[in-house]
Amino acid sequence: MATAAIVVIGNEILSGKVVDTNSPYLCRELRALGVEVDRIVVIPDEIDVIAREVRQQSETHDWVFTSGGVGPTHDDLTMDGVAKAFGLPVEVNEAIVARIERALKQPANESQRKMAALPRGALLIDAGDLWFPVVVVENVHIFPGIPELLQKKFDAIRSRFQGVPFVLRRVYVRRKESDIAHELNALLEAHPELMLGSYPRIRETEYQVLLTLESRDEGYVQRALEELLARLPSDAVHKIE
Amino acid sequence: MATAAIVVIGNEILSGKVVDTNSPYLCRELRALGVEVDRIVVIPDEIDVIAREVRQQSETHDWVFTSGGVGPTHDDLTMDGVAKAFGLPVEVNEAIVARIERALKQPANESQRKMAALPRGALLIDAGDLWFPVVVVENVHIFPGIPELLQKKFDAIRSRFQGVPFVLRRVYVRRKESDIAHELNALLEAHPELMLGSYPRIRETEYQVLLTLESRDEGYVQRALEELLARLPSDAVHKIE
Repeated sequence: MATAAIVVIGNEILSGKVVDTNSPYLCRELRALGVEVDRIVVIPDEIDVIAREVRQQSETHDWVFTSGGVGPTHDDLTMDGVAKAFGLPVEVNEAIVARIERALKQPANESQRKMAALPRGALLIDAGDLWFPVVVVENVHIFPGIPELLQKKFDAIRSRFQGVPFVLRRVYVRRKESDIAHELNALLEAHPELMLGSYPRIRETEYQVLLTLESRDEGYVQRALEELLARLPSDAVHKIE
Repeated sequence: MATAAIVVIGNEILSGKVVDTNSPYLCRELRALGVEVDRIVVIPDEIDVIAREVRQQSETHDWVFTSGGVGPTHDDLTMDGVAKAFGLPVEVNEAIVARIERALKQPANESQRKMAALPRGALLIDAGDLWFPVVVVENVHIFPGIPELLQKKFDAIRSRFQGVPFVLRRVYVRRKESDIAHELNALLEAHPELMLGSYPRIRETEYQVLLTLESRDEGYVQRALEELLARLPSDAVHKIE
């Protein structure tokens, strides 16, 4: 099973000015592809912090995705950080400068050339109608922080990550979580490979707990679901999805 | 300057089922109090992962806040993880069991007793009208994942974290980021302590970049703002806040 880590880079998120919507998007999309995200880290715009974090996540995951820090200004340090993570120099890619100049219809200034400065040897994957490609270094996919651009870029390369998707069933339960916890433990003893989630909902009126049952094996989820339903009092089940 | 890390615990967030709104809330509130959040980590419901992460963040920050994993079910492992981080045993706190039983008006079952199992020696801070106190171990504040409860608990103890707040000015600019990057670099050379953010907005029609100028020193921000305005062409400034 492929694993992934998401590294979100940006002081604006840590200081509460901007809400990160990129990691929720990537979590959902990767999950649907069958990739297990097991860590999200949000860190400041600092080269050494970026380098250390990217290196560490790259070593312990199949895929790493970064978000943010790739623009033309002083606080856009992701390329430098990723390069440092792998001991690579940063070099201006003249092919990208040429693309920028075609898009702008004028010579690139110093800041625009900075945007074309990439870790040496980076893999560049064309991203549909965007003039800037997806930059990949080792197993690290470098995405911009602007959600619309990140999503377009992810769409352009999502087939790289296709695995065996998870099968998910939801059971909405009319009981307090603490009243069914014992049954959930028994269910997990009989189905140790089941991924079982239990989420209390204090604002819903028709149910109090949402249970999620997941596996990559559809039959396994189905058998677990049947056992769960046999264990719960029939009036406890509000809905099954 | 006090620093903080937020450790969000929950498979439901990593698998994309639930969007974490707790870390954005804590970032905003802590920032307003003058506390600098410099790391957010989202990790799975696994004791060893929780223990390692909490230990590490506790050693490198003034404050740590955890969110999630404190209910009565199999996947609620935060108390065990925090206890393990500091080599403490987990013990059922009979005073909390008594509170649970008063709230329920019946004896606590096994799962409800589990909710009262805390790291030995934890500091318990009364949280307003909630029957469950805020649990603090060393510098780690353990919050529930349910946003309404987390916010009530944070409100009850926020005065513990009061520091010198940041002064923030916003300048909305009618230029491409790459066209003003040079001026921003010059501004930072003259005001090296300024926290300067630059955020392109591709969906806005009236401006293209939001700049944020911050410091704990109001005069410093004001002087930097004046220099910025002197550097930008006058028609480039859409609005100042």
